Amino acid sequence: MPDAADKRRARESDPTRHRWQPSERVPQNMKLYIASLSTPSPAALAVEIVERKGIGHPDTVCDALAENLGMALSRLYLERFGFILHHNVDKGLLWGGAAQPAFGGGEVLEPMDIYLTGRATREFRGVKIPVEDLAIGASRDWLGKNLHALDAHRHVRIHCLIRPSSTELVELFRRSRATGIVLANDTSCGVGYAPLDRLETLVHAVERRLNSPAVKTAHPEIGEDIKVMGVRQENRIALTVACALVGSHVRDLPDYYMKKARIAELARQVGGAAGVAELAVDVNTADGDTADSIYLTVTGTSAEAGDDGQVGRGNRANGLITPYRPMSLEAVAGKNPVSHVGKLYNVVAGRIAAAAVAQVAGVEEAHCCLVSQIGRPVHEPQVVDLRVRAAAAADVQDFRPCLTEIVQSHLSGIATLWRDLVHGDERFY
Amino acid sequence: MPDAADKRRARESDPTRHRWQPSERVPQNMKLYIASLSTPSPAALAVEIVERKGIGHPDTVCDALAENLGMALSRLYLERFGFILHHNVDKGLLWGGAAQPAFGGGEVLEPMDIYLTGRATREFRGVKIPVEDLAIGASRDWLGKNLHALDAHRHVRIHCLIRPSSTELVELFRRSRATGIVLANDTSCGVGYAPLDRLETLVHAVERRLNSPAVKTAHPEIGEDIKVMGVRQENRIALTVACALVGSHVRDLPDYYMKKARIAELARQVGGAAGVAELAVDVNTADGDTADSIYLTVTGTSAEAGDDGQVGRGNRANGLITPYRPMSLEAVAGKNPVSHVGKLYNVVAGRIAAAAVAQVAGVEEAHCCLVSQIGRPVHEPQVVDLRVRAAAAADVQDFRPCLTEIVQSHLSGIATLWRDLVHGDERFY
Amino acid sequence: MPDAADKRRARESDPTRHRWQPSERVPQNMKLYIASLSTPSPAALAVEIVERKGIGHPDTVCDALAENLGMALSRLYLERFGFILHHNVDKGLLWGGAAQPAFGGGEVLEPMDIYLTGRATREFRGVKIPVEDLAIGASRDWLGKNLHALDAHRHVRIHCLIRPSSTELVELFRRSRATGIVLANDTSCGVGYAPLDRLETLVHAVERRLNSPAVKTAHPEIGEDIKVMGVRQENRIALTVACALVGSHVRDLPDYYMKKARIAELARQVGGAAGVAELAVDVNTADGDTADSIYLTVTGTSAEAGDDGQVGRGNRANGLITPYRPMSLEAVAGKNPVSHVGKLYNVVAGRIAAAAVAQVAGVEEAHCCLVSQIGRPVHEPQVVDLRVRAAAAADVQDFRPCLTEIVQSHLSGIATLWRDLVHGDERFY
Amino acid sequence: MPDAADKRRARESDPTRHRWQPSERVPQNMKLYIASLSTPSPAALAVEIVERKGIGHPDTVCDALAENLGMALSRLYLERFGFILHHNVDKGLLWGGAAQPAFGGGEVLEPMDIYLTGRATREFRGVKIPVEDLAIGASRDWLGKNLHALDAHRHVRIHCLIRPSSTELVELFRRSRATGIVLANDTSCGVGYAPLDRLETLVHAVERRLNSPAVKTAHPEIGEDIKVMGVRQENRIALTVACALVGSHVRDLPDYYMKKARIAELARQVGGAAGVAELAVDVNTADGDTADSIYLTVTGTSAEAGDDGQVGRGNRANGLITPYRPMSLEAVAGKNPVSHVGKLYNVVAGRIAAAAVAQVAGVEEAHCCLVSQIGRPVHEPQVVDLRVRAAAAADVQDFRPCLTEIVQSHLSGIATLWRDLVHGDERFY
Repeated sequence: MPDAADKRRARESDPTRHRWQPSERVPQNMKLYIASLSTPSPAALAVEIVERKGIGHPDTVCDALAENLGMALSRLYLERFGFILHHNVDKGLLWGGAAQPAFGGGEVLEPMDIYLTGRATREFRGVKIPVEDLAIGASRDWLGKNLHALDAHRHVRIHCLIRPSSTELVELFRRSRATGIVLANDTSCGVGYAPLDRLETLVHAVERRLNSPAVKTAHPEIGEDIKVMGVRQENRIALTVACALVGSHVRDLPDYYMKKARIAELARQVGGAAGVAELAVDVNTADGDTADSIYLTVTGTSAEAGDDGQVGRGNRANGLITPYRPMSLEAVAGKNPVSHVGKLYNVVAGRIAAAAVAQVAGVEEAHCCLVSQIGRPVHEPQVVDLRVRAAAAADVQDFRPCLTEIVQSHLSGIATLWRDLVHGDERFY
Repeated sequence: MPDAADKRRARESDPTRHRWQPSERVPQNMKLYIASLSTPSPAALAVEIVERKGIGHPDTVCDALAENLGMALSRLYLERFGFILHHNVDKGLLWGGAAQPAFGGGEVLEPMDIYLTGRATREFRGVKIPVEDLAIGASRDWLGKNLHALDAHRHVRIHCLIRPSSTELVELFRRSRATGIVLANDTSCGVGYAPLDRLETLVHAVERRLNSPAVKTAHPEIGEDIKVMGVRQENRIALTVACALVGSHVRDLPDYYMKKARIAELARQVGGAAGVAELAVDVNTADGDTADSIYLTVTGTSAEAGDDGQVGRGNRANGLITPYRPMSLEAVAGKNPVSHVGKLYNVVAGRIAAAAVAQVAGVEEAHCCLVSQIGRPVHEPQVVDLRVRAAAAADVQDFRPCLTEIVQSHLSGIATLWRDLVHGDERFY
Repeated sequence: MPDAADKRRARESDPTRHRWQPSERVPQNMKLYIASLSTPSPAALAVEIVERKGIGHPDTVCDALAENLGMALSRLYLERFGFILHHNVDKGLLWGGAAQPAFGGGEVLEPMDIYLTGRATREFRGVKIPVEDLAIGASRDWLGKNLHALDAHRHVRIHCLIRPSSTELVELFRRSRATGIVLANDTSCGVGYAPLDRLETLVHAVERRLNSPAVKTAHPEIGEDIKVMGVRQENRIALTVACALVGSHVRDLPDYYMKKARIAELARQVGGAAGVAELAVDVNTADGDTADSIYLTVTGTSAEAGDDGQVGRGNRANGLITPYRPMSLEAVAGKNPVSHVGKLYNVVAGRIAAAAVAQVAGVEEAHCCLVSQIGRPVHEPQVVDLRVRAAAAADVQDFRPCLTEIVQSHLSGIATLWRDLVHGDERFY
Repeated sequence: MPDAADKRRARESDPTRHRWQPSERVPQNMKLYIASLSTPSPAALAVEIVERKGIGHPDTVCDALAENLGMALSRLYLERFGFILHHNVDKGLLWGGAAQPAFGGGEVLEPMDIYLTGRATREFRGVKIPVEDLAIGASRDWLGKNLHALDAHRHVRIHCLIRPSSTELVELFRRSRATGIVLANDTSCGVGYAPLDRLETLVHAVERRLNSPAVKTAHPEIGEDIKVMGVRQENRIALTVACALVGSHVRDLPDYYMKKARIAELARQVGGAAGVAELAVDVNTADGDTADSIYLTVTGTSAEAGDDGQVGRGNRANGLITPYRPMSLEAVAGKNPVSHVGKLYNVVAGRIAAAAVAQVAGVEEAHCCLVSQIGRPVHEPQVVDLRVRAAAAADVQDFRPCLTEIVQSHLSGIATLWRDLVHGDERFY
């Protein structure tokens, strides 16, 4: 189904039409800026705010399902054809259901509806690809594995709003892959920074701990829908945790309060291990004293009862929401790992920043931003802006050769980055 | 339909249950931080990136429809009952259609599908409220008025995924309004800054100009789906404009190229008027030389052909995407203007920053961040973090009294902010 | 999209593969039975029951929209390619909405949803056919023209569940048309009879009168959703009429009762004109004495409020439901007029019966039944069973030559029957 | 959600408002006609046609799922409240999917979509009833049990288009049940006849045999989508069988033909056992000689690949389609067994006819027709028309007392008929 947007992008990806010409407007190689990072680290400010939406939060569920589907498609294409075919499934909506939670049980009245949205190659060389079947199967698998109290068959309905990629686009995508010169499919930017500071590390770790297999086994009452909001004022950190409890594992109100206290305790342990001295943890702060006024669920996620979600509305690629840090609005989840700069540049910007800090002695912090221009080769961004904070007494300009090499190596690695993404287990939500 | 998420929030909004108690953990009044802004202005950096998705971009269409619906609901509730009832319609998905553009015409093959999602009061005091009818009517109206080449009846299908708000929630919402103490419905944060710098102003102005009534009348070939990506390197600004042209107003390929050149010229005029010396404008950069390889549409938006959109995935409340600026991930669109801190705090943070700059001589720039905690009164955030850049030779501490008053006045104004939002015409996308 | 069912049928329609071979099992020409009709005419029985669901009844709306779409597709294919392409849209569902009727007005709370279902050629010789756009446009047109109080844009949502016909099928369908030998796509049967008796004529006429332009202009309060159930006991006929009244044209309860009386009077006039002596008419029999307990609507159809409909669940091809007559379960509406025997045989059976009565003096009544076998030429049914009632003193066998000729001429006319159906204005619901 | 149609019916079912008054128009007790059946038995005619759509045919699947859901709802209401609450789920649509069958396997590309449609009580005495969850669960169960090669989770998507019954209606339904006087919810008619003749018995038996557990175990290649069309000409019976074969149990084309021959053989055995002398059986008549041109499926039903279905479009309550017999257009499936005359009267008419034949010596055949009038008590039809064929030398009038008693006893049994329907295992499709 050829369409305007596809076509627009298709021709821009056609390696046979566009010979890349240097010009005064668009430099032959992208422009690389390396500068000193003058922005203060948020850890140095009086106030800092960091948020993480846990794996069962409706927004995170959407991100995970979109990414999971994109990866499943990539693997299927690889298996059947030896290379990845065009797809982009980076939109999605979860429409919350209706439920009636209760101590010792409860029931789901209406399932949640999940709309997976985008385009994918549905036929190639005469072979049909079961995109819809895959979307439904892969999503049910993910839900079954990640939300322990949810029945992925009964409590969820999955809609596959995926149009076929245009024939043209499919072909060009394949050819561009073949020539080794993949052209950017969009004008967009990716950002990343390193390292995580203490509050960021803590917020991330608390959710990961509460949703770890060990904790889930010991405390099946802890649902996966956990939101952690961390606010630091000077040295004091306050974590406000919203955590869905699973009714079938909660006997009554006293049991609920007991279990809630345990959640706070688990969070405090994470803080203790991280050496946080002044830590306050609030769990489901505003709970009342009746079954109606507490955060009880059937499935461990508020998506069962009217809380909706979307792809790209929650955590950024590093798993956090950080208003005091540079962020991109591009969703990483669901984009194809071959040509979609909205995915590739966010991943690579994060990796460049991390490598700068890890590999260059004297670099304490790094921010990286990459901008593409539609139709340029993916490995030649319009601009790369890398800013680093040097340790006291160091001069950023001394790091320039090392940093340049790091940038170049990551850019040239973009062509094969899909291998990492498809076969690795890094999570970007 | 009472549900877990509703209930969780409902009790937190119950003014009769929660008497607000000062404690050492949660100070009686929110904590206000006023500090010097040590972050450099992006205008002072070597590289700066700013993006705006125009009014016809699928993401912006979603924001606009969600906000438009929220406002229509608010007005309907006001008309019928004298006050606003509970609603939250801040999620939404646009599933792009299929089209066959052509010079001099073209046709839409399959309409786009728009899913408006959330909860709203559907019955109150025995009166049923035509939420679905309103959603469809209001959306068609908006589309008809804002996308000149789109047939809002034939080219669009609207789905209303809006569950009824729980009875409890409806009642509590009403009562909390009655007592005058509205409690925060979530733990979230809002951010804002002022003023816009030169690149921000330019990017915003270029899209606004291209989508102005005057330009549309003179150049009906310019579709509303315009994305402007501005990249500044030192003093040079490059704008990459993606602009959908409307096939029925384009005769042939030469005409297309002629009209594209005019678009670039219009953008350059905006730059010229703003005194930008070194400005490069690229429109639909990678266009080829056949009808298939240019950015031609039937309706003026790529949503006609497979480009999908979502609420909250595009512009922030100030109409821009600014990776070099603090940003919130909270969508403003579609949230109720009475209790939803995700909306109120973003609006208020922007206004506090603007007021700091406008009203306090010597304040050149301001960043403001507000964090709520679920269950606290809306006008008492957990933390207010206001950082300002003082003009040379000024001391931020001298501004403290003025700034404190600005903050307090905006916080106390939150209770009636809905009037501005409902009756005003400020746009937050 | 090639599929099992398509393929199965496709090969059966391939005129190049199947050479039609006479065999003892399947005679070269279909077997024609002509016999005396020994079944008594229902008019001769003590009890007779006849029903008609009027044009605005949810089932009839579904029939009309399916047929309207099939015809619109046929015409579009003819215009663009010179012949009709494969399609079958004979399924459909109307999901009733929600409404709040009131004297002097009322409002629709949720629109009705209409699902048009089937398969159609969506691309041919590289040209895409706007099937979905057509389906929506044609349906809105029909609704706008036929249901005077319904807003076809606001009160209805149309879903096009139409998969593409397989490429193979499209091609074979075209070729079979080209060779002039169209093969039956299914094993099914069609039935017809003539003439209508007095009760049948009356039931049909009452609905047609109440829904005539003259009555609608004079009495806009009469909605199109009119169901007439006629029960004859000996000479007495009782009509039970259910008729939706349109709230905006009804002032109050007395006005409602006055207008209801007028509807009964109009029905009695039809009876009087037809010479029915003993006629009782009940309209909305069980109405109560409050606005809540009468049959008041906003749009003139119960589909606005939870009454659902389906294609093929109401009137047979002659516009009636007649348990005392032979009936086929095949829906005529929406089937393609070239090869679909479920449509063609019902139409032709009715025409053969009518011709037998009209053209053969001495034939007073005729029943006709045709059975196809999948893969046989459409004009050669497996069996034709024609039974006629001869006037007193006549012998059916004397009519044999005439009747045989009537059958043969109608069978050979099947090849061009589509012209009648596409360009004529005969209604089969 | 009170609605016009609900209300209209609700008041008619209100036993406290309507005192049933005898009148000249509507006799106090329904009018019972007992007459001699002058219509010839189809077995006595030269030609007869009988059809059965097997359990896996898309239309039958729809009937089965609607009835299955209605019964599940009835049982749930009984369990939770002790009586059946209002519901009507007698509409439904199956939108066929897309599949790629293959010898030894194949795959479903897109699931089929099933839309279950109607109204049901969703809340009663403050208890919410998980209608949607039940609909999905019950449907998956039925599909899993009845279609052996279908994966009820992956290959099917179920949509619950069920609006809440109006509160009023719920209450009246309950009250009418309490008073023991249930009023008819519609003006409609039910018909039945007995006994089945030889062709009817054969057509039914062939499908039942091919879909019996024994045959399925021995021949898993036989899908449940089996359509049997029986045409009798004089003494010769021809059965045209369309039977979906399951690809995973078919090795190759010769194997397919071998297995097809076995199906014909099985059908002939049924005929032999029934003493049919001249029987021809055709299976998938028009199969070609390539994998593409045979009736191969993944799941055993053509619903996997574009064949759509609807409730009430296939078999009548006795499991057959019989154009030479009286038939009702009312769907039995999915209607509530307490007040819905469209269900009750079809069941009862069949039972009265069967009882007349079984219990009255000398009655060889019986046709029964019942007509309700909306608002009359269910056990007092407007008319009962019973016609019987007496054995030679018998006089129908002699049977009048027995037949009257049979009718009366079945009518008075209507009040408790639901017990049979809910707990029995009679099938009406």
